[in-house]
Amino acid sequence: MAASSSLTALHPHLAPTISGRRPAAAAQSQLDLLTLPAAGLRFSLRLNPKAAEVKVSSRRVGAIRSAVIEEAEGKPATQDLFEKSVNTIRFLAVDAVEKANSGHPGLPMGCAPLGHILFDEFMHFNPKNPYWFNRDRFVLSAGHGCMLHYALLYLTGYDSVKDEDLKAFRQWQSKTPGHPENFETPGIEVTTGPLGQGIANAVGLALAEKHLAARFNKPDLEIIDHYTYVILGDGCQMEGVSNEACSLAGHWGLGKLIAFYDDNHISIDGDTEIAFSEDVNARFDALGWHTIWVKNGNKGYDEIRTAIKEAKAVKDKPTLIKLTTTIGYGSPNKANSYSAHGSALGAKEVEATRKNLGWPYDPFHVPEDVKSYWSRHISDGAARESEWSSKFAEYEKKHREDATILKGIISGALPVEWEKAFPAYTPESPADATRNLSQQCLNALEQVLPGLIGGSADLASSNMTLLKMHGDFQNSSPQERNIRFGVREHGMGAICNGIAHHSPGLIPYCATFFAFTDYMRPAIRLAALSQARVIFVMTHDSIGLGEDGPTHQPIEHLMSFRMMPNILMLRPADGNETAGAYRVAVLNRKRPSILALSRQKLAQLGGTSLEGVEKGGYIISDNSSGNKPDLILIGSGSELETAAKAAEELRKEGKGVRVVSLVSWELFEEQSDEYRESVLPKAVYARISIEAGSTFGWERYVGKKGKAIGIDRFGASAPAGRIYKEFGLTAENVIAVARSL
Amino acid sequence: MAASSSLTALHPHLAPTISGRRPAAAAQSQLDLLTLPAAGLRFSLRLNPKAAEVKVSSRRVGAIRSAVIEEAEGKPATQDLFEKSVNTIRFLAVDAVEKANSGHPGLPMGCAPLGHILFDEFMHFNPKNPYWFNRDRFVLSAGHGCMLHYALLYLTGYDSVKDEDLKAFRQWQSKTPGHPENFETPGIEVTTGPLGQGIANAVGLALAEKHLAARFNKPDLEIIDHYTYVILGDGCQMEGVSNEACSLAGHWGLGKLIAFYDDNHISIDGDTEIAFSEDVNARFDALGWHTIWVKNGNKGYDEIRTAIKEAKAVKDKPTLIKLTTTIGYGSPNKANSYSAHGSALGAKEVEATRKNLGWPYDPFHVPEDVKSYWSRHISDGAARESEWSSKFAEYEKKHREDATILKGIISGALPVEWEKAFPAYTPESPADATRNLSQQCLNALEQVLPGLIGGSADLASSNMTLLKMHGDFQNSSPQERNIRFGVREHGMGAICNGIAHHSPGLIPYCATFFAFTDYMRPAIRLAALSQARVIFVMTHDSIGLGEDGPTHQPIEHLMSFRMMPNILMLRPADGNETAGAYRVAVLNRKRPSILALSRQKLAQLGGTSLEGVEKGGYIISDNSSGNKPDLILIGSGSELETAAKAAEELRKEGKGVRVVSLVSWELFEEQSDEYRESVLPKAVYARISIEAGSTFGWERYVGKKGKAIGIDRFGASAPAGRIYKEFGLTAENVIAVARSL
Repeated sequence: MAASSSLTALHPHLAPTISGRRPAAAAQSQLDLLTLPAAGLRFSLRLNPKAAEVKVSSRRVGAIRSAVIEEAEGKPATQDLFEKSVNTIRFLAVDAVEKANSGHPGLPMGCAPLGHILFDEFMHFNPKNPYWFNRDRFVLSAGHGCMLHYALLYLTGYDSVKDEDLKAFRQWQSKTPGHPENFETPGIEVTTGPLGQGIANAVGLALAEKHLAARFNKPDLEIIDHYTYVILGDGCQMEGVSNEACSLAGHWGLGKLIAFYDDNHISIDGDTEIAFSEDVNARFDALGWHTIWVKNGNKGYDEIRTAIKEAKAVKDKPTLIKLTTTIGYGSPNKANSYSAHGSALGAKEVEATRKNLGWPYDPFHVPEDVKSYWSRHISDGAARESEWSSKFAEYEKKHREDATILKGIISGALPVEWEKAFPAYTPESPADATRNLSQQCLNALEQVLPGLIGGSADLASSNMTLLKMHGDFQNSSPQERNIRFGVREHGMGAICNGIAHHSPGLIPYCATFFAFTDYMRPAIRLAALSQARVIFVMTHDSIGLGEDGPTHQPIEHLMSFRMMPNILMLRPADGNETAGAYRVAVLNRKRPSILALSRQKLAQLGGTSLEGVEKGGYIISDNSSGNKPDLILIGSGSELETAAKAAEELRKEGKGVRVVSLVSWELFEEQSDEYRESVLPKAVYARISIEAGSTFGWERYVGKKGKAIGIDRFGASAPAGRIYKEFGLTAENVIAVARSL
Repeated sequence: MAASSSLTALHPHLAPTISGRRPAAAAQSQLDLLTLPAAGLRFSLRLNPKAAEVKVSSRRVGAIRSAVIEEAEGKPATQDLFEKSVNTIRFLAVDAVEKANSGHPGLPMGCAPLGHILFDEFMHFNPKNPYWFNRDRFVLSAGHGCMLHYALLYLTGYDSVKDEDLKAFRQWQSKTPGHPENFETPGIEVTTGPLGQGIANAVGLALAEKHLAARFNKPDLEIIDHYTYVILGDGCQMEGVSNEACSLAGHWGLGKLIAFYDDNHISIDGDTEIAFSEDVNARFDALGWHTIWVKNGNKGYDEIRTAIKEAKAVKDKPTLIKLTTTIGYGSPNKANSYSAHGSALGAKEVEATRKNLGWPYDPFHVPEDVKSYWSRHISDGAARESEWSSKFAEYEKKHREDATILKGIISGALPVEWEKAFPAYTPESPADATRNLSQQCLNALEQVLPGLIGGSADLASSNMTLLKMHGDFQNSSPQERNIRFGVREHGMGAICNGIAHHSPGLIPYCATFFAFTDYMRPAIRLAALSQARVIFVMTHDSIGLGEDGPTHQPIEHLMSFRMMPNILMLRPADGNETAGAYRVAVLNRKRPSILALSRQKLAQLGGTSLEGVEKGGYIISDNSSGNKPDLILIGSGSELETAAKAAEELRKEGKGVRVVSLVSWELFEEQSDEYRESVLPKAVYARISIEAGSTFGWERYVGKKGKAIGIDRFGASAPAGRIYKEFGLTAENVIAVARSL
């Protein structure tokens, strides 16, 4: 897609399905470019001539029903039609779960009134362009209730959920999988299901809105102005990640975040009283939220409306609306019990529910008056977007430079020549820790990537992640780009996933010690699954951190991510490789990256390069010829230097020694057979790997006859040099092992 | 150690260091046995003749100074001596960090008064027996401040921390590592450092006390009666896991849990105001805790004393005492700033601090009057334990049966013949999901293992973890053994670590979906590192869970645990293997186990056995001879059946096919070379593995010429059978691959 495409279809890289194979790096890097002035000055991006032709304001679909738009809020359907329409949602969920004989009817039945009011009366969106930039975002954190969302997407006219999709609920390759998946179903913002993630993603979405609004809105032109709505259940409330994220949301005063807590008192094990007796609203008060309790979430339609209006009026705090509902509402024998939560009601109970709610229709039937009532959302949505596009055209005229930058964030197009920003290193450059080199890269990229934003989980000065030209993103300074996450790794990861999914051009990064990826692993996995380009900056990547000891020393972590699908595990060895790792991370728009970085100083090595990193594995030095070295030493990160040192010694003995940097297994395995053979020829069995981590898995590259030097126990508390020596991660040991081969 | 040893030295398996190598299964299983009556009736354990000779009450060390004991609370040293003594703690920390040139002086300097008051005036312990059963437990959740704890262990007279240990702070193999490690330093209850873990461990310790007290105390004999104290910092408060655990502590009404929140307003990134502006005490009020705020934690000694007394008086709720302190108190230029947090003060500032606090002594010097003041704790502690031992002797006379059971819990000795409880299966036994077979095992073990206690993170009915003869552990029924953790996997894991570390005979288990081990990975890793025998019961262990889709389907998880040090990853295939897995899990007292269990029904296979599981890998069927099969099929869990089916077909074609169950890589790799060769002969290259998980790492067993059938992408939402077929995890595909080899 060229940068000159309309802003109304700006999500080109959300391909319909995630493939089992990793896309080739080459394909990944075919991203669109905005022209960057040669000087690469901060905030002076310009569109290239082609891009300047974008007709942002030209698209008007259908009649603009501005009267409807203006009056939509608070103008519900008549009571009868409303209840019929609410029951339509309930039965679409009941019928889909029944047909699949699998799923969760309880939440959609209980939350149907809320969903109806929210989507019909409050939310701004355009069903025919799910990626319209200024849409309100909706997240179903209680993802198991996804039939609620699918039913609403269907009724409002999204193309992603048609009649046949509802009938294919939870089936192979359907658009309506068992939990909401953004990469399968346009209209779904983020992937949820693992509890607590969605609310934290929503905090990220709301953060992105607040940040972009502060950066780009003008007194006369509010070009960014949307809400983030989220429904979360008891399970989400119990998960620690939600408390982490909500503490931050309160701290940041995310006034346009409105969370509905579906207080139905039932979780899988029964009444929540058996494990959850805290006062949730009081907790949120303590976290700095505005809180409301709607006691009759089943029938108190006007209370729901009033609560949402109140929430929107509170602009300095996020709002939690606790909505007491009945799970499985309408089911005479299963409502208010666990049995309505996670399985089909069963033919008999479905029948009883139809009778109970007065629903005479066949499965999946949508009454004509209901259909007709919802139909206005297609034209309303088009009109909304059109109105916004006009506004954007005006914005572009008045604020050309900002508009250009914003278009990059909206589209994900990278500035032309952005890659020139990377610092270059030679073996003469001073030795440095890759965490410091990472900071050089981040600060170089900040100047050319307006969407780069991030921070650390209270380790900014250890992870070296501060953007020096920026202040802190705070309630009073939301235009800034250094985010202070506090000691909340899990919340940090999930918030970054939300930021990444807000706009294709936002590039969130986040940092902690590599060992503490354990704390945020569910969020990292969801970044991989949901194709969120988050850059995980993980420093202190080995026993090299020294005295803090085994609790802080990663061992199994490198390997554990190498085997995770759709994520890049990069372990650069020096300045050039660190730059290369960032380059790869930015170019992989549908794949997150983890950078493992050293605490300790490392030499700048000869032979390393940005281009090498792109291939994942490459030769940094070799004194043999004909692709027949006597020995291949393979290293990564801090141990590449050790391999290089050992090679130097061994060459003095007349050996032909090749040193290979295996900076990313995933990228190397995407290369052609020929290339891989040129780096690691099959005929050469004498191979030694050295890496300060688990040797598990190294069989792949050293084979049965080679030897993996690494660490298969927990670390230890002592000065780093001592641990390296005790564990045999030294050039001397590599040489000894080489001689034994 | 024989079961007849004194109860005063009941922690035989806490060897001084954790070795890189995994101990042989044989060594692990040499546990002490209590006699179990042949009938194996519930709660009718009896000691064998030898064990009956235990002289519980015979040990009296030193004079019993009961007057001192009774009056200890509230009788501090004179003000002058107290401040001198507090400064002793401060300077031991300052000097140790200075000598190591690494560490965290800030917290010990700020919390020295609290530590002093707590250890000197309130806590019950016996320095010469760190494992005395009825001791108060102390956890430093802010583990980086460990010099506070080391200084207190030193002053109170623990043998584990001597003068030379303080001087070896953070050095190779010292008793004073960079964070508290229970397996290195007797007197340390749990391993902390990763923030938020310690407070959650403390909840587990307090749970264990409440549970055991309810089960074993008699109206006239309170044999179990201790407090759990914990210090946590801002970082712990921000971590979600602490909120999870504290929500449960409030729910359970753990009145003997007293947490001190060191509110020093400084974290690594600076003032906590940049990321942490919530009202912590209000949050704890919402969680059902009693809360207190001591505003002058630096000098308000009497306020601290009053607060602790108040906390002890509140018996129906845990108490949070927020203590506002100054980090690095006493350092004229670094107090109240980040620079006092995590590095040595530096010679100059140490000097300035000495001047500022009026400390004329050399590094590590403890003034004689201070030494003398603390010295009473050795005799006091001995007297306390002795007094308790007398009480226990009386208890044993009056309540012989309970005493026998309790001694098993205290000592960790297993009842004789406990293993006979396991159900046995034949190929004719009905096919069943291993999660159901797991429940059969748990309910069989419950009858012979009085220390078995556990539950699920709101998935009891899916994980099949309920003990049918027991009710729920709740505030009003703490004697029960089914724990309801709510949707709090991380808190659950950390709480179970605390339970395991409370008493050697407590065997906690906890459950969720296998994919959600991601949520609790830090706790699982700490179980492994700290040698906590927790049984992680992980069901829905593959794409076999079907429609819930990729968010719920583990892929990389099996492998990611196989590479984690000191933990057993077990994936049983049927009833016999499930029983074998539990047997191994119980016998490995210093190593946690993860059981990956199927949601779907599996056939009972011929050739599987408990004994096979103990070896990790073994032959379940073979039609070849001379250890020379044409083909070896290796499977685990649900795919072992697939391998067996494929073998049957291939044998019809005249092939010699061996089927190997690789139920635990760790155990298999601990076997002799000969045994491993007898199962997987090196000469046989034709090998196929089949496992519904990542193929990463299978090179180790299938080699370059073999083939691993598995899943290297995320899963999908569809009926399980369909996904298995689409992903090629079928006997047909195994056969096709076999033909291609």
